[in-house]
Amino acid sequence: MHKRFVAHIVSRICLVVCFIMVAPLGWAIYDNFRSRETRAFLISIAVGIICAAAVLFIFRLKKEDHQKINAKDGLAIVGLSWLSLSFLGALPLFLSGVVPTFTDGFFEITSGFTTTGATIFTNVEILPRGILFWRSLTHWLGGMGIIVLYIALLPALGTNAFQLFKAESPGITAERIEPQIKETAKNLWGVYFIFTFLEILLLMAGNMPLFDAMCHTFGTMATGGFSTKNASIGVYSPYIQWVVIVFMVLAGMNFALHYRWIKGRPRALFFNEEFRYYALLICVLVSVFAFVLMQTGLSSQPLRDAAFQVVSIMTTTGYTTADFDMWPHALRFALVLLMFIGGCGGSTGGGMKVVRIILSVKVAFYSIVQTVLPNAVLPVRFNGKSLSDKLVLAVVAYFIVFILLFFSGSVLFLIVESCDLVTALTACIAALSNIGPGLAKVGATQNYAWVSPPGKWLLTFLMLSGRLELYSILIFLVPATWKK
Amino acid sequence: MHKRFVAHIVSRICLVVCFIMVAPLGWAIYDNFRSRETRAFLISIAVGIICAAAVLFIFRLKKEDHQKINAKDGLAIVGLSWLSLSFLGALPLFLSGVVPTFTDGFFEITSGFTTTGATIFTNVEILPRGILFWRSLTHWLGGMGIIVLYIALLPALGTNAFQLFKAESPGITAERIEPQIKETAKNLWGVYFIFTFLEILLLMAGNMPLFDAMCHTFGTMATGGFSTKNASIGVYSPYIQWVVIVFMVLAGMNFALHYRWIKGRPRALFFNEEFRYYALLICVLVSVFAFVLMQTGLSSQPLRDAAFQVVSIMTTTGYTTADFDMWPHALRFALVLLMFIGGCGGSTGGGMKVVRIILSVKVAFYSIVQTVLPNAVLPVRFNGKSLSDKLVLAVVAYFIVFILLFFSGSVLFLIVESCDLVTALTACIAALSNIGPGLAKVGATQNYAWVSPPGKWLLTFLMLSGRLELYSILIFLVPATWKK
Repeated sequence: MHKRFVAHIVSRICLVVCFIMVAPLGWAIYDNFRSRETRAFLISIAVGIICAAAVLFIFRLKKEDHQKINAKDGLAIVGLSWLSLSFLGALPLFLSGVVPTFTDGFFEITSGFTTTGATIFTNVEILPRGILFWRSLTHWLGGMGIIVLYIALLPALGTNAFQLFKAESPGITAERIEPQIKETAKNLWGVYFIFTFLEILLLMAGNMPLFDAMCHTFGTMATGGFSTKNASIGVYSPYIQWVVIVFMVLAGMNFALHYRWIKGRPRALFFNEEFRYYALLICVLVSVFAFVLMQTGLSSQPLRDAAFQVVSIMTTTGYTTADFDMWPHALRFALVLLMFIGGCGGSTGGGMKVVRIILSVKVAFYSIVQTVLPNAVLPVRFNGKSLSDKLVLAVVAYFIVFILLFFSGSVLFLIVESCDLVTALTACIAALSNIGPGLAKVGATQNYAWVSPPGKWLLTFLMLSGRLELYSILIFLVPATWKK
Repeated sequence: MHKRFVAHIVSRICLVVCFIMVAPLGWAIYDNFRSRETRAFLISIAVGIICAAAVLFIFRLKKEDHQKINAKDGLAIVGLSWLSLSFLGALPLFLSGVVPTFTDGFFEITSGFTTTGATIFTNVEILPRGILFWRSLTHWLGGMGIIVLYIALLPALGTNAFQLFKAESPGITAERIEPQIKETAKNLWGVYFIFTFLEILLLMAGNMPLFDAMCHTFGTMATGGFSTKNASIGVYSPYIQWVVIVFMVLAGMNFALHYRWIKGRPRALFFNEEFRYYALLICVLVSVFAFVLMQTGLSSQPLRDAAFQVVSIMTTTGYTTADFDMWPHALRFALVLLMFIGGCGGSTGGGMKVVRIILSVKVAFYSIVQTVLPNAVLPVRFNGKSLSDKLVLAVVAYFIVFILLFFSGSVLFLIVESCDLVTALTACIAALSNIGPGLAKVGATQNYAWVSPPGKWLLTFLMLSGRLELYSILIFLVPATWKK
């Protein structure tokens, strides 16, 4: 591993985040200059700068470091950056005293950066605005990716940028191989910024104050889920709920696709197989859910409630306007299955991603056809192109790693918590797919305050594994990583 | 499809089973000549012979039929045979009036043939012995496979035998490709027969009556689970429980491996990677379970209870001596995970099979190593040999098909039953992996009497899919099967 180079980039990314932390500091100062959270932010920024500077000084770059880094370095930079940011980000929460332990702060902020939105606060409405803003801002940074932002804004990393970009961005990267990775990063963040701006305006048009509009927009566009209200989006008007639904759908789509239709190629949408399935799945499920809710009389606004909850879970946002834990068991389980699917590749959503599910289902279907026609050659196709066996195997391997990680996480969670099976399993998938709420004791109206410290660290590990698409975190468990 | 040939073989297999049905008829006559069950068996045998004869007459073989059948025909023969046998086998239960509807009889007998052991009877001790014997005998026939028996005993099918053998026998078939498939079938049934004989003797040595010894041996060797007692093996002495444990372990092993060590090659056991993992997993889990049960004081004989339940679930037998639904949640969930794993390939056990789990875990592990070393060539090895990409992809495709079938089965079950999630999910995996008991409302001390007819048909479908390793049943859902 190119240790010096890795340390260098990680510290520079921490410096960027220290700079960004000035924004919540601003809200803290605006509300009360002498408050405890103002001091907390100032100390955190100072600690971040000092630590980063120390690392930069110790691991000074030498001439031979300006060579090409390898895949391992890329994964390590991403994994270590995210860990460092979660530590740095947890400092203000801990120092301002809003969380009782550092574990809680780390859980909350990792939940923020990974766009999970699982909270340990039982009452968020009493929190200072600086803290609330920071919590939501971590969503926004983590959604499109802090390293992608770094690539977009700061001096070129040359060919190394691609390794980092690949390691942080969700989904299958085949279509993102462009010569100008810096341009790609800029375009993606550009689209993200435009949507964010638009949603804030539309929410304010519905009489939401600027502060709440910003926080909820960050939570929506990043498919995060932190709210400034205890009852989440449920307290707002139907207009605001529909705005959030529309932007959740947008956030769950591939941002490269957004860039294309914004640039005047709207047909790109309909030629994209993943988008077609994504749209179809949402339409079908919303109709079914609305129909069942109407028939059972469990909701006074079945279509809106169905649309909000289905889209929120499918895109892995985790905002709620209804307690879906009270719905029929078949609907609850359908929501759990949606948690595994998640958003599209290249979106800010979590989960396995629609594209991987499509390919896995195709592999399964072709394996049945293959038994009927043993000599047929059946290449897996996507967007009309045949995929190589190697890529297909990588996709199904991801499917298996995901399922195995989910099962082993659930066993460990049950060992440390001894809660019921539904709570344990949905807490683990809600963490791994970066959703937030699960069922039962971690349901729509519950929170994670009751989870013990070991349980919180376990869920934090699952959140990071899920957001960074498993490998950036899991490589640290593999001996090959530690060999020269 | 070679329709005439398929119809011909299916009818001949039905005739074989009509002949075997004379055994339970014998018990019925022995107990009471004029009883309703005697008449039921006589009518069933007559119906079976008439239907088979009619089909044989209508689909007379022509000269061109004596050619090689293809994979599709093999799968179709196996799928149709098993469906026909379940219908035929359900007749005595329905005609004797022990079940209220034909659905119940079909469920019970499919549960028998597929070695699931899920029962709809709330009190089996009042059932006539002829019926009890038939129930258990279907286990024994289904365990090693009725078609494998047909291949072993009846006139050679030539090269066609291999297609049928492959379609009915569980596990990955690479090592079973021998020139003399008839010999292989004979050897496997020979080993099966010896073990069956031995267990009956050992159970009778523990003062179990011949009838119960036979029924429980059929249930053990086939990893079935039907008992003649309401409290399953729990009512018997520790000696009998240990005998059953040992034979469950044997039944969960590859019978080709048994054949080798019986033939004087005991070292074959230790060179077999699948057996090593199987033995290791059982030892580790029994120790952990025994330790937890001892610490929590939930059992007065922790080692025996741990060994019995772990082995029974892992081998997919489903006998019980303790209500594991009262155990800590982590142990309950560990048992659920064991349900997915199942026995070894080539055993009479169900589930995904140990070999497929090993290979899937290897694929997952190598995919992580591959991200660290993108240019490394990492072939998946088993028993020291590299496997082809095609075989590996087939194994992981099976993993995916299994998981998808489990999830879709659970959704459908929840739609037709609206029971809690734990019941629905464990009922589906208990059916798909051919175990029998699950958790909650289908737990160790419960039964399937409460399930509605649609739910029963769904579980029946899952049992057949699981026993025939998915494809023999699933091909009927694929359009390619119906094309010329």
